[in-house]
Amino acid sequence: MDELKHPLMEKAIALDSEDPLRPYRAEFVIDDPELIYLDGNSLGRLPKRTVELLDGLIRQQWGSRLIRAWGESWIDLPARLSSKIAQLIGADADEVLVADSTSVNFYKLVMATLSQVQGDKCIITDSSNFPSDLYLLQGCSASTGNPLRVVEPTELLASIDADTALVTLSHVSFKSGFIQPMQAVTERAHEVGAYVIWDLSHSVGAMPMSLRDSNVDMAVGCTYKYLNGGPGAPAFLYLRKDLQEDWMSPIWGWFGQDHPFDFTLDYTPAPGIQCFAAGTPSILSMAAIEPGVDLILQAGLAAIRMKSVLQTRFLIELWETILAPLGVTLNSPTADLERGSHVSFGHPCAFQIDQALIEEMKVIPDFRTPDNIRFGVTPLTTTFGELCQGVLRMERVVRDKRYERYPSRGFGVT
Amino acid sequence: MDELKHPLMEKAIALDSEDPLRPYRAEFVIDDPELIYLDGNSLGRLPKRTVELLDGLIRQQWGSRLIRAWGESWIDLPARLSSKIAQLIGADADEVLVADSTSVNFYKLVMATLSQVQGDKCIITDSSNFPSDLYLLQGCSASTGNPLRVVEPTELLASIDADTALVTLSHVSFKSGFIQPMQAVTERAHEVGAYVIWDLSHSVGAMPMSLRDSNVDMAVGCTYKYLNGGPGAPAFLYLRKDLQEDWMSPIWGWFGQDHPFDFTLDYTPAPGIQCFAAGTPSILSMAAIEPGVDLILQAGLAAIRMKSVLQTRFLIELWETILAPLGVTLNSPTADLERGSHVSFGHPCAFQIDQALIEEMKVIPDFRTPDNIRFGVTPLTTTFGELCQGVLRMERVVRDKRYERYPSRGFGVT
Repeated sequence: MDELKHPLMEKAIALDSEDPLRPYRAEFVIDDPELIYLDGNSLGRLPKRTVELLDGLIRQQWGSRLIRAWGESWIDLPARLSSKIAQLIGADADEVLVADSTSVNFYKLVMATLSQVQGDKCIITDSSNFPSDLYLLQGCSASTGNPLRVVEPTELLASIDADTALVTLSHVSFKSGFIQPMQAVTERAHEVGAYVIWDLSHSVGAMPMSLRDSNVDMAVGCTYKYLNGGPGAPAFLYLRKDLQEDWMSPIWGWFGQDHPFDFTLDYTPAPGIQCFAAGTPSILSMAAIEPGVDLILQAGLAAIRMKSVLQTRFLIELWETILAPLGVTLNSPTADLERGSHVSFGHPCAFQIDQALIEEMKVIPDFRTPDNIRFGVTPLTTTFGELCQGVLRMERVVRDKRYERYPSRGFGVT
Repeated sequence: MDELKHPLMEKAIALDSEDPLRPYRAEFVIDDPELIYLDGNSLGRLPKRTVELLDGLIRQQWGSRLIRAWGESWIDLPARLSSKIAQLIGADADEVLVADSTSVNFYKLVMATLSQVQGDKCIITDSSNFPSDLYLLQGCSASTGNPLRVVEPTELLASIDADTALVTLSHVSFKSGFIQPMQAVTERAHEVGAYVIWDLSHSVGAMPMSLRDSNVDMAVGCTYKYLNGGPGAPAFLYLRKDLQEDWMSPIWGWFGQDHPFDFTLDYTPAPGIQCFAAGTPSILSMAAIEPGVDLILQAGLAAIRMKSVLQTRFLIELWETILAPLGVTLNSPTADLERGSHVSFGHPCAFQIDQALIEEMKVIPDFRTPDNIRFGVTPLTTTFGELCQGVLRMERVVRDKRYERYPSRGFGVT
């Protein structure tokens, strides 16, 4: 393809040759090197070690060791994995629990928080939050009577007042990639006596953070995006140590019981964060999370973030040169400090452009309503060359109006 | 071993030779034919088809198709699997949903039910219920104020009165294997205007049942026991069609939203049972459920139950001849109609006997406090010969007091 002769492609090749994370790409299953995968922020690629690990788990542990594998291997998995994820978010090992889905974990924390609050103070979030979190909050609000206020992002800080019980936001917006000022929002909430829950789904594994330094109360996050945990892999929750004595999960299950295998009739919560576990963990899906987390810990979040910033900055340069002249807008922040690990390009026919890229161009970005085409950067696998090629192919789709033959809506999973 | 010359072994061999389900054993990974696995009621064996299916799911779908696999394969999985499980429990496809853990599903149904109930009527269960269900109910009771009454099994029917909101029980007791009279309890509950939730974890896949014919309101169940779904595989819930319009899950997540990928800001519950879904399903763990369910559907629950009854009856005969004289008691019902698919033998040193069987005898039953050694029968894989050998080895352990060197407590997972 003549795209390889584009001047920005030379720059991309130079950047790739200097990339200290380049060796990590070989750690992932990439059986079609021609495919430009820019959706690792929706479903991370498959680590090769995960293939081996699952093969052993299925055949040896489940197949041969059978029930004995619980005591030999599986029972320790949630705590070990939790301690590794704690390192990624700047928390202590006993402040993190891998369990259930993000939604269920978010529910547990919201309900535990509201049960600590006197009166009918508000829950505040903003309209850039991930819709599933908004739905959860609407359900909790309907159940507890605490009003939910969904404000515009620009009004957020000013909306937090003495009537606020809980502030909860996505750390990185799933549409624009905007990074919320975690520390400032948390401080403002604490000033008025409110708690915060951060949803780290779109940031964990893509950038360093310290929930400890930001004095965050609670957080949840997903493992199948930047952590490469596999489709629908279990999620995690974080609850700061000093809150653990008072916070109680609404879902009292046997994995949250002190000594579950005593089978006593009365619930005694396990100490610390463990009481936020409920049912038996899904071992296959949970075990698949660990190799991706190990790779991220090995590469280091500082190096990952540095490459991510260079890559999203390069995407913006590509946009400016190639896409802006065609009427494509930039729907993501230009300031590095405000931008997560994806860049959204805007176009009225974004859904159709996304389809054309997937069907004809071997490029997989994704679409987010109403007009966003997200190019996700996952530094352990994404090359600068792929970004340049991806944008050049999008240029062809837009310029030649190749998207017009595609229907104007359909299916996508974040 | 001389156990092969025992007269009851001849009977076992004859029974095996007549067993119409014998070919199914070859459908499972059994790499150590000497191991007598009697704990399929805790963790079912690994179907060979599951190995193939997961290999393809991991390498081809996740590894190669990446995010495209959601639309191509995964999005339809929960509904397809739900419709198959519906066949096992005598329900319609649109009355069953595979999602989350048994605990989380049970929580959703209990809370949805209590929100329909006026005043502070009681929840009734009995002390033979699985402890995790008791814990969940204690948590719900603490949250809603509806009192929880845990009665003795013999007092159950008499305890259900006009003050009862909800009756919930394990269909088959995890200790004794007693089958609760589902229809009689459900009818009694309905007479006083109460609802029922049955926990089918210890019966689904082991015996035919018809929630339709018993007019059951709600049920939950686990897939990693008799359904061979793998460690901690997602669970299911059942909600009778006519209740679906009023019952609302407390956990409003995007997979329960009508058109989740529109990313609208307001929650509109998906029609029917789908609104009881919450977060993204754990695809690896969920996909692993299907081959075991297919094998059970293929073999047929009537044939499975017939063999199960013959096998538990044979276990009782073995107990009477071999174990009773050594002081081992029978902790399970003798009436076929009252007995599920496991038999519990009682001994004050049950935990130690269980350990000795596992460590020295290549027999894996399991222990349930305080004195139960459970011999679980999973008709697609268990042979009559294994049952006879298992009991003969237990005889040696008890007779020779081989258990005395083992500590008196430890770890077990149901």
